[in-house]
Amino acid sequence: MSTRYGVHSEVGTLRQVIVHRPDLSLKRLTPVNKDELLYDDVLWVGRAQIEHDAFVGMMRGRGIEVFYHQELLAEALEAAPEAKRHAVERTVTHLTVGPSLVDEVRSELASWSGVRLAEHLIGGLTKEEFAAAVQAGREGFDVRSLVAAMAERGAFILPPLPNSLYQRDPSAWLYGGVSLNPLYYHARRLETINQSIVYHFHPMFADDGFAYWYPPMGDDGRFDEEDFGHACMEGGDMMPIGNGVVAVGVSERTSPVMVEHLAKELFTAGAATRVLAVKIPPSRSYMHLDTVFTLLDVDKATGYPPVVENAEVHSLRPADRRGTAVRVHREPGLAAAFEDALGIGKLDIIPTGGDDYQRAREQWDSGSNFVALEPGVVVGYHKNEFTNRKLREHGVEVIEIEGFELGKGRGGGHCMTCPILRDPV
Amino acid sequence: MSTRYGVHSEVGTLRQVIVHRPDLSLKRLTPVNKDELLYDDVLWVGRAQIEHDAFVGMMRGRGIEVFYHQELLAEALEAAPEAKRHAVERTVTHLTVGPSLVDEVRSELASWSGVRLAEHLIGGLTKEEFAAAVQAGREGFDVRSLVAAMAERGAFILPPLPNSLYQRDPSAWLYGGVSLNPLYYHARRLETINQSIVYHFHPMFADDGFAYWYPPMGDDGRFDEEDFGHACMEGGDMMPIGNGVVAVGVSERTSPVMVEHLAKELFTAGAATRVLAVKIPPSRSYMHLDTVFTLLDVDKATGYPPVVENAEVHSLRPADRRGTAVRVHREPGLAAAFEDALGIGKLDIIPTGGDDYQRAREQWDSGSNFVALEPGVVVGYHKNEFTNRKLREHGVEVIEIEGFELGKGRGGGHCMTCPILRDPV
Amino acid sequence: MSTRYGVHSEVGTLRQVIVHRPDLSLKRLTPVNKDELLYDDVLWVGRAQIEHDAFVGMMRGRGIEVFYHQELLAEALEAAPEAKRHAVERTVTHLTVGPSLVDEVRSELASWSGVRLAEHLIGGLTKEEFAAAVQAGREGFDVRSLVAAMAERGAFILPPLPNSLYQRDPSAWLYGGVSLNPLYYHARRLETINQSIVYHFHPMFADDGFAYWYPPMGDDGRFDEEDFGHACMEGGDMMPIGNGVVAVGVSERTSPVMVEHLAKELFTAGAATRVLAVKIPPSRSYMHLDTVFTLLDVDKATGYPPVVENAEVHSLRPADRRGTAVRVHREPGLAAAFEDALGIGKLDIIPTGGDDYQRAREQWDSGSNFVALEPGVVVGYHKNEFTNRKLREHGVEVIEIEGFELGKGRGGGHCMTCPILRDPV
Amino acid sequence: MSTRYGVHSEVGTLRQVIVHRPDLSLKRLTPVNKDELLYDDVLWVGRAQIEHDAFVGMMRGRGIEVFYHQELLAEALEAAPEAKRHAVERTVTHLTVGPSLVDEVRSELASWSGVRLAEHLIGGLTKEEFAAAVQAGREGFDVRSLVAAMAERGAFILPPLPNSLYQRDPSAWLYGGVSLNPLYYHARRLETINQSIVYHFHPMFADDGFAYWYPPMGDDGRFDEEDFGHACMEGGDMMPIGNGVVAVGVSERTSPVMVEHLAKELFTAGAATRVLAVKIPPSRSYMHLDTVFTLLDVDKATGYPPVVENAEVHSLRPADRRGTAVRVHREPGLAAAFEDALGIGKLDIIPTGGDDYQRAREQWDSGSNFVALEPGVVVGYHKNEFTNRKLREHGVEVIEIEGFELGKGRGGGHCMTCPILRDPV
Repeated sequence: MSTRYGVHSEVGTLRQVIVHRPDLSLKRLTPVNKDELLYDDVLWVGRAQIEHDAFVGMMRGRGIEVFYHQELLAEALEAAPEAKRHAVERTVTHLTVGPSLVDEVRSELASWSGVRLAEHLIGGLTKEEFAAAVQAGREGFDVRSLVAAMAERGAFILPPLPNSLYQRDPSAWLYGGVSLNPLYYHARRLETINQSIVYHFHPMFADDGFAYWYPPMGDDGRFDEEDFGHACMEGGDMMPIGNGVVAVGVSERTSPVMVEHLAKELFTAGAATRVLAVKIPPSRSYMHLDTVFTLLDVDKATGYPPVVENAEVHSLRPADRRGTAVRVHREPGLAAAFEDALGIGKLDIIPTGGDDYQRAREQWDSGSNFVALEPGVVVGYHKNEFTNRKLREHGVEVIEIEGFELGKGRGGGHCMTCPILRDPV
Repeated sequence: MSTRYGVHSEVGTLRQVIVHRPDLSLKRLTPVNKDELLYDDVLWVGRAQIEHDAFVGMMRGRGIEVFYHQELLAEALEAAPEAKRHAVERTVTHLTVGPSLVDEVRSELASWSGVRLAEHLIGGLTKEEFAAAVQAGREGFDVRSLVAAMAERGAFILPPLPNSLYQRDPSAWLYGGVSLNPLYYHARRLETINQSIVYHFHPMFADDGFAYWYPPMGDDGRFDEEDFGHACMEGGDMMPIGNGVVAVGVSERTSPVMVEHLAKELFTAGAATRVLAVKIPPSRSYMHLDTVFTLLDVDKATGYPPVVENAEVHSLRPADRRGTAVRVHREPGLAAAFEDALGIGKLDIIPTGGDDYQRAREQWDSGSNFVALEPGVVVGYHKNEFTNRKLREHGVEVIEIEGFELGKGRGGGHCMTCPILRDPV
Repeated sequence: MSTRYGVHSEVGTLRQVIVHRPDLSLKRLTPVNKDELLYDDVLWVGRAQIEHDAFVGMMRGRGIEVFYHQELLAEALEAAPEAKRHAVERTVTHLTVGPSLVDEVRSELASWSGVRLAEHLIGGLTKEEFAAAVQAGREGFDVRSLVAAMAERGAFILPPLPNSLYQRDPSAWLYGGVSLNPLYYHARRLETINQSIVYHFHPMFADDGFAYWYPPMGDDGRFDEEDFGHACMEGGDMMPIGNGVVAVGVSERTSPVMVEHLAKELFTAGAATRVLAVKIPPSRSYMHLDTVFTLLDVDKATGYPPVVENAEVHSLRPADRRGTAVRVHREPGLAAAFEDALGIGKLDIIPTGGDDYQRAREQWDSGSNFVALEPGVVVGYHKNEFTNRKLREHGVEVIEIEGFELGKGRGGGHCMTCPILRDPV
Repeated sequence: MSTRYGVHSEVGTLRQVIVHRPDLSLKRLTPVNKDELLYDDVLWVGRAQIEHDAFVGMMRGRGIEVFYHQELLAEALEAAPEAKRHAVERTVTHLTVGPSLVDEVRSELASWSGVRLAEHLIGGLTKEEFAAAVQAGREGFDVRSLVAAMAERGAFILPPLPNSLYQRDPSAWLYGGVSLNPLYYHARRLETINQSIVYHFHPMFADDGFAYWYPPMGDDGRFDEEDFGHACMEGGDMMPIGNGVVAVGVSERTSPVMVEHLAKELFTAGAATRVLAVKIPPSRSYMHLDTVFTLLDVDKATGYPPVVENAEVHSLRPADRRGTAVRVHREPGLAAAFEDALGIGKLDIIPTGGDDYQRAREQWDSGSNFVALEPGVVVGYHKNEFTNRKLREHGVEVIEIEGFELGKGRGGGHCMTCPILRDPV
């Protein structure tokens, strides 16, 4: 089947992209819950919106079509009755609000507009807000439900998903198909449900012929959740680097099991002929491959030396004609593996800038996390002075954006963008 | 339907009980993995077996019929071809060993005897052991599977389940039915699969007419796993205290959601008319209700004062005739709630013995975790000198067992036993 | 003796103040060492300097005399040969660089200019930098010192003191005297040595007749370090609120032992007649009293309700004429204690702004940490929108400063300033 | 000067040794304070005493003279008035109980008998116990002291020192002198004061001519505490291996700085000609050199392979005739360094027994921590079955002791003994 979408490289001209504007979910972050919600600090949301708006404005000014995740979700929810029902059934269950309240919470939420529901599917919904919405006294619930009786007023019926800011992770396009990813942390798992609703119900996507690399399609053609256990895969680790190759970080958040799944799906569909599995040490600093390594141009990349210099890399190739079995072999190193896979003579891996201290500081501040708008033109945070300067010395054009607030969840331009249409190189 | 089994009180004469003798799984504990496996220390397994054998010998000497979990599991696996298949399919999946190896690992394990398979379902299986079993070189797997290529030789294909020692938790009898519990920690979740196989396939249980309180039966009459998320319930929190009442701890490991589920199931079946939900602060010291409070006699219990004196208690009762809705109300305190629910004048809650330091030390060493063999006759660890003396002063007969090693996972006699037949009082 | 300095209230007109401009020490912060150095995140130093310069510019524009700690330190080091010797001997010892190198490191550093030495006393000095300074090869040290042989090139000979940004803590003026405080964390202890050098050797202070409340003067009139053990006291907890009263937070970082010391010293000198000890729960969010409560005007304060509403407060008063013994009694609450102590009818404690989430977020972002420039005129971070608005509604003038970077060590305007001359009210 | 004492090897015949019988301090351990007090679990003290008595009985039965630390301390306290005064002044200060109570607490304790004071110097003393001792009501203190007013009844005036069980660490004999060690954790620092009192005041030692390797003697010939900062050294890392050589572990608890100090002191006194510094990775499992490596015979040792195979070892030798400067060089490895230093052809390092799991488990259970009673005759815990068997296969006689309780602070026979007289080999 053919599709209007597709991401055919990491650095070809970017045409269409999805982002998420900082929202209600970030207003829920507190010193107490921020760690569980994967943020190092609380954000000043007003300021984060200004920074994000500038980022989007810059991309639009260059002719890139930018979609907002929350708007797509709101439209998808309105597009078909099953969309709303699906969303509500996946997020409110007898195991979250308890059997006593599940029906009434579901039917209340299903009566909301797409705009309102989308706001809370991403932003979260407290017991207090829900009670206000249904004009019920607190006691109303508490005598009918132990779950309600034992919950604080600020307890979440729908949890906030503040990491929605980083649209790179929950869904990822690789060539002509998309993967709806099983995310590592519980705090992010519902993000993928929201993605699934957009791709399955939004008119923009519902009738398009793209492939789903993951999960395997259920009989009803819907996203079929499983208990992933420790299996996981996130978009920050998944890079369609061109030439029929996909590079995947094996990190805290992407397991070898999922890389195998993905490789087989791509091979049997004929969408790729090789997968490079790049091992990243598990650490808050190096959560995904794109936190230590991103491509900048057809033959240029940037990498954080302590990680990329010693990375353990394996190649996966089809072991047979149908691609249902794989052949694995160990590569000598990251640079050599990429050069061989891309068929280029030399990949110039520009190291993070500055001395040991500066490097560690800029890597932490998303100083390896650039997103290319076209070959050799990339976006990065203003604050990474040493690295930005170094890239320019190597002939890369660096467009700087401000990220005082945006970066507090440890993500940069690459993390914040989900390309859906990008040229090959 | 009628059943040969049933637990009709916490202190009536104990007739039949399941336990688990310390095994291979405990030999896998190391300083590195012990915390993840929920142990405070490694155990000397030889010594733990001696302690456990003495405990079992004492019970048998008093006429109690004692079954070993591992033997039941081995027999159940041999009882029907689906048993083995079910076990293997639930524990080895495309998400654990990866899609490349799942078929060959499953077919190898399915060819093992029930005895051998049961040993490893509980004790774990390393990559190295599996390779030895199939007489394959390490390279054999590594070229066909990224999962294998990236795994250490000691990596687990089947994880060890050392908490199987505490048979109280993964399944729990309440009157004429059993609950196969969704356990809180990943490290324990597979224990429930093993329980499910015993109850569904062992001839001792397969044709008996007992009820399943949880999970709800699937169409095929099998244990139907779901992604429980944060919902959880463990046997150490579940007490059929008699008079149609069940007391349930709401703890780190048992959520209000599951208490609601359980209450409705019991109410609709007419198996109980009231559930007491007792809140326990989440802490390693107080993991279940039975770590701070156990019944000793028809009108005697022991409790750790800092917890039981301030416990928040709610009652759940059927809100209608069919029992599908519940009515919740807050009780004034634990002692009053139990007295009212049991219809007794006065519940003598004997506090943990000694001064503040001694109490904290003995509570930690399972000094509140007694299991009754008959009314007023209980089993506890020898080392809890102050509490044992105090119970005796209150007319309770305390049978002492040694627990140097057995207690290192923070469990005593109540934790180690799963009664399946116990008289009412 | 009389003094040109003195801080006679928390809200009277501010005349002179010491601050520290973000420097080299903050460039040493990395994801790996930031927690030990008490920062939640690394800072973009260039930006932090811009924010700080604006803060200082605003104060100078209002006629306040602002001194820079690093300049004072450099001048003090040049003022007398003993100053440099004292600094070097206190910071480089046989217990830090080892007996083999102590003499040569000391004599090298003592030969540096005051400016250069001050930079590194605050900013830190690595093994690599020292080797470059003495033009010695690495091997030169390594064969003569095991300490050198086992140290990385980035190891610190002088540790960086990035919390020098928060000048409030290491020294604190209470009426006509200063306390050189024993700080809680090892990471900050050397800050007090730097303060001591300024007060003892800088011409601005050396001949002035102010008192030292702590430490007790040695025979040589110098700051006499002791092994404080767990005793500690920090300026963020110390407030000369006027009317002969000092309020002191008893927090993670200020112990009751030190409050007793301080009270006796103040009482015997006749500098105060009452000390209010306000207990703050130990937590990263509430590290000092001034993180949850600051005075804004003669009868206005702001407080974070969850802490100030339940604070345990004791009064200390002289038990005899000489003030060498104290009398302690428990106060009914914070507001009442302050009203009584200040002799005012009503203290308007304006709560942190917004709902539960906003309050927790703004308190975290120094939303209770205002510094008054004169009665009713205070400085706070721009980002605390809800609280700033609320203060204005209560008639307080809030001057906003930017603190994207400055706040990452969890400090606001009160934390960054060490008033040395402030009017009574 | 000559001495009656001296430890001239690690494996020569043991003549005299100091140990500490489990006492009151261990009864203070609770789940809440155990981690801070460096224990993994609480102990059953009655049982620990039985195990310890058996250990001592075995040594006495072999003709070894065994002294009890607590008895020596009691006798030393009685030996001279300054002893008691010194003890009380070092342990009760204006920085521990506060200036208001320091005098009265000191004078009360100084009035106690040596036996009673020794019990509490090791076992700790609570506010409640002290109040009972002076027959004062709680209020009596609370109105005179903020420290008292804010303390719980179980707060410690003298902290318990449960690690006194491990007599190896606070003092250590190397040839003809002893080192009073600066211990790493605050929880252990006062142990060294107790040792100091024994060595300085007990008639057995007071007039003997042994050397003090550390600390440097003050003018008054007393132990002179300093603020060690991060400098530290513990006996478990210090081994007089014979032939004028001392091996020292550089671990979490012993710093290179202190190794340099020690080396210089030994060299200038002519007591040793070489120090081997063996680096141990910082980890709970490997806290001292003697937790991964101990000598068993003149040419036999046991070591935990993952640590000893890759240990970084440096030699220190005198750089000049007087020994005031050292020469450092890197050794090729541990085995080679010991062979060269001891002048033996081959050191047989017997690895910990069993497979990877068993090794890790037995190392954790003090399976590398043997103490020799004479060459080739060592004491170890019964539970380390695999290692004990392996040592026997190599011709070592292993005397087994029980250590269910004794080992919970992670120490074995080597840790529990402080040899004061041992033959050379």
